[in-house]
Amino acid sequence: MKLIIAIIRENQLDQVREALIDAGITRITVSHVSGHGRSKTEEIYRGQVVIPNLVPNIRLEIAVNNEFVDVTCNAIISATKANDGGLIGSGKIFITPLEEVIRLRTGERGPDAI
Amino acid sequence: MKLIIAIIRENQLDQVREALIDAGITRITVSHVSGHGRSKTEEIYRGQVVIPNLVPNIRLEIAVNNEFVDVTCNAIISATKANDGGLIGSGKIFITPLEEVIRLRTGERGPDAI
Amino acid sequence: MKLIIAIIRENQLDQVREALIDAGITRITVSHVSGHGRSKTEEIYRGQVVIPNLVPNIRLEIAVNNEFVDVTCNAIISATKANDGGLIGSGKIFITPLEEVIRLRTGERGPDAI
Ligand SMILES: Nc1ncnc2c1ncn2[C@@H]1O[C@H](COP(=O)(O)OP(=O)(O)OP(=O)(O)O)[C@@H](O)[C@H]1O
Ligand SMILES: Nc1ncnc2c1ncn2[C@@H]1O[C@H](COP(=O)(O)OP(=O)(O)OP(=O)(O)O)[C@@H](O)[C@H]1O
Ligand SMILES: Nc1ncnc2c1ncn2[C@@H]1O[C@H](COP(=O)(O)OP(=O)(O)OP(=O)(O)O)[C@@H](O)[C@H]1O
Ligand SMILES: [Mg+2]
Ligand SMILES: [Mg+2]
Ligand SMILES: [Mg+2]
Repeated sequence: MKLIIAIIRENQLDQVREALIDAGITRITVSHVSGHGRSKTEEIYRGQVVIPNLVPNIRLEIAVNNEFVDVTCNAIISATKANDGGLIGSGKIFITPLEEVIRLRTGERGPDAI
Repeated sequence: MKLIIAIIRENQLDQVREALIDAGITRITVSHVSGHGRSKTEEIYRGQVVIPNLVPNIRLEIAVNNEFVDVTCNAIISATKANDGGLIGSGKIFITPLEEVIRLRTGERGPDAI
Repeated sequence: MKLIIAIIRENQLDQVREALIDAGITRITVSHVSGHGRSKTEEIYRGQVVIPNLVPNIRLEIAVNNEFVDVTCNAIISATKANDGGLIGSGKIFITPLEEVIRLRTGERGPDAI
């Protein structure tokens, strides 16, 4: 099992959610974050390094069984390119290991609980 | 060491916090998220797949030593069933590996820093 | 690759961001959380265990290649001690494994995408 974390633009949340649901991925957790990526302009302004502003982003957290990792990532990749063909600052996917899942209602564990 | 992530209902945060403290787990991080779980009603509405609404939830993040994983999960499981016996949408626990912990005040590392 | 999570005080966010950028770490994700650490005062008030209040904190999430783990942690450790020499409740760093990274704009994967 994997815990997939994706940081995307706020204005792409709906198209990403739609793409995930079309791909059969209906269970997700969403939160509002901010951040900065690689700065083209790590400018020196009057001799001072300028600290970049924090830009609002969306963080998705999606626990999936291994066979759904690719379908999940592909849905996010296609959806974030759908309108703009890939702009600077489109975001990242991070894939991390997930050792156990428990459904609170039933106490079920493992791949069936995901 | 493990990093335990739990997604619970907003109205169960206090009873979960109380259960964790009763079980000796006092160190936690809390955030406001939203999400959707498995949809009974992945309805087709006039030929369109309906995207489910995002429901507000609470995300708990709890770093624990291995011998506290069960006590932590059991406290959350019992507390979320306390009032309602286990309703649809009660949430999930995700257990992920945690390689290192550092207490910023002292620089302590590992199980003692948790 | 590692996913570094740091919980810090709200009033130290700017000095931590500055220290990270000085250390060459420009890509981060920030969110507002709350929490409690170890309670000096797990008080019994009139025979009742008192549930501690949730204190507002900042959560940083930083994906780095392995050779940047130390530089990242050291920047956070120094910055959080800069003004106060290490106060109770200064926060924690959690280091977790990161298996894959994808840059959404390009589809790049792995260490180059981070
Ligand atoms: N290494 C990282 N660690 C944590 N968060 C990151 C990292 N890289 C990107 N992010 C998050 O993703 C958001 C978007 O990043 P962004 O897409 O600009 O990455 P980038 O590496 O600069 O790629 P690009 O060259 O396409 O802009 C950032 O604002 C930040 O919240
Ligand atoms: N696989 C998952 N990945 C990420 N977040 C999830 C996942 N499953 C559940 N969640 C989060 O937990 C919340 C509650 O999920 P929920 O309890 O409805 O799960 P479920 O699998 O549908 O179980 P139930 O059948 O008991 O409703 C969701 O709104 C979402 O925020
Ligand atoms: N084990 C943990 N799991 C999850 N979050 C934690 C944990 N420990 C600390 N935190 C988060 O970090 C914040 C600050 O914790 P704090 O620095 O008080 O830790 P502590 O162990 O009590 O150390 P100190 O003795 O220096 O106060 C908490 O409010 C909480 O959000
Ligand atoms: Mg960028
Ligand atoms: Mg559900
Ligand atoms: Mg403390």
